Amino acid sequence: MAELKNQFPIHTFQLVLECTGNGRSEFDPPAAGNQWTVGAVSCAYWTGIRLKDLLDKVGVKKDAVYVGYHGLDRHLSGDQTKEPISRGIPISKAMMEETLLAFQMNGANIPNAHGYPLRLVVGGWPASTSGKWLKKLSIRNVIHDGAKMEGQSYKVPCESVVPGAVVANADMRIIESMPVKSLLTFPKSGAMLENRLDLKVNGKAWAGERSVSTVDYSIDFGATWKSCQLSKPVNRLAGQSFSAHIFFPQKGYYEIWARATDMTGLSQPMMVPGWNPKGYLNNACHRIAVKVL
Amino acid sequence: MAELKNQFPIHTFQLVLECTGNGRSEFDPPAAGNQWTVGAVSCAYWTGIRLKDLLDKVGVKKDAVYVGYHGLDRHLSGDQTKEPISRGIPISKAMMEETLLAFQMNGANIPNAHGYPLRLVVGGWPASTSGKWLKKLSIRNVIHDGAKMEGQSYKVPCESVVPGAVVANADMRIIESMPVKSLLTFPKSGAMLENRLDLKVNGKAWAGERSVSTVDYSIDFGATWKSCQLSKPVNRLAGQSFSAHIFFPQKGYYEIWARATDMTGLSQPMMVPGWNPKGYLNNACHRIAVKVL
Repeated sequence: MAELKNQFPIHTFQLVLECTGNGRSEFDPPAAGNQWTVGAVSCAYWTGIRLKDLLDKVGVKKDAVYVGYHGLDRHLSGDQTKEPISRGIPISKAMMEETLLAFQMNGANIPNAHGYPLRLVVGGWPASTSGKWLKKLSIRNVIHDGAKMEGQSYKVPCESVVPGAVVANADMRIIESMPVKSLLTFPKSGAMLENRLDLKVNGKAWAGERSVSTVDYSIDFGATWKSCQLSKPVNRLAGQSFSAHIFFPQKGYYEIWARATDMTGLSQPMMVPGWNPKGYLNNACHRIAVKVL
Repeated sequence: MAELKNQFPIHTFQLVLECTGNGRSEFDPPAAGNQWTVGAVSCAYWTGIRLKDLLDKVGVKKDAVYVGYHGLDRHLSGDQTKEPISRGIPISKAMMEETLLAFQMNGANIPNAHGYPLRLVVGGWPASTSGKWLKKLSIRNVIHDGAKMEGQSYKVPCESVVPGAVVANADMRIIESMPVKSLLTFPKSGAMLENRLDLKVNGKAWAGERSVSTVDYSIDFGATWKSCQLSKPVNRLAGQSFSAHIFFPQKGYYEIWARATDMTGLSQPMMVPGWNPKGYLNNACHRIAVKVL
């Protein structure tokens, strides 16, 4: 650790780490796995050295294609020859300026649950690529084949498939950049507004390796949309904040929908998008219900 | 009949008549009534005299507010003092140029199921206002209170309500103009495309008393939308045809969504819109599934 800190420049980036299985519970037919609802996503400041600087220093052979991580965590079976998870990223992603070997989260030592003392932080990609409790890295001349790289883990069909289809492993591709998404963070769903017809809402938006261009909201189930205020990301791969001052036409029950669009024009769908066997990448619009009394 | 035809100018309009309960089956919690799926909608040419011309001829008192219809059909109970349905329209709608007393549908006598020999045709409003097998009209100085005008029939809450809410009759309003909607009419859902990556789709769009400005389609669950070709209506309150030549990026399963927007900027929602006790006015986007083999 001390060696790393002394030998290389130290950088801090705000980076979004998101679970690929967020919203899995909405797929029909259902997909096995942790039934994430709104989901697990974070946007912390990470401080560390660039993986790129380390790889440049040690030297990477010309046939290298992938970096795999290995952590200190134990396999649930207790078998010490097995790893619970050992995923990785292509060399091109490893070489990105924001890909860090981090030893601090939000300016303090990384909490144990988040990978103390050292973790890989791969912004914009599935959080499962950001290996925790880092022990070792493997530079591979094939796509890394550690635990959770095999079978259908963190993969989606190369072609869109009929809901419920059985897809051969060979017809699946590894998920890389995450899709555009947003969450309303204030107020909580179920808010009651007394003696007022207006509400200020806040939220966060992100788009994997892309930036978010616009966030819109609707209070009429998508019949009309209005623009939110949207902040610029503090650095590439950081989250963006949005807000809106909503005026309701009259009393009643409303659902507030947020929809982000990325720099290439891709928007969040209003409904769960393409079905896939493991229920990944549900980036449907988030909505909250409020009652104007 | 002959009297009507001889005394008044005869007009032909293409008019959309649509069931207010279309898509009722999608509401959650469910709404009682005929569980219409995609629904019942027609767009025929209707020929007859203007109701306005008749009302002008007979003279309407200054306190008249509503016209109620009475048909030759019998109440299911067999009780001849009861009418199965006797709805109506405000005088202002009765006076519209397209509101007809029709004796022809698509250039021939009206088929019996559609109201032979004479029916009221009220374009853009709930089809239940277009009384069939017409026997009599009542000019009312109150809102017509015939069968299916009372209680919660053909009414929605004045304020949007929490799904499943119990709403007092006094807090309901009569449905007037229907909302913007569209249907993909070709191909049928389930189409298999062999040895090709393109498809021409057709459909119809309408918007109650408004016209449709644009129809868009999506093949990626709403992440992106492209414009359809859209015809102008042949007259006010007529349906509009749309078409698109779709190119798929690769083989796979696709859902094709159509979304119409009316002249005031209101679009169809992607999901079932505001819940209401009787499950009316579901104008969610239509979608069909196709497989590109």
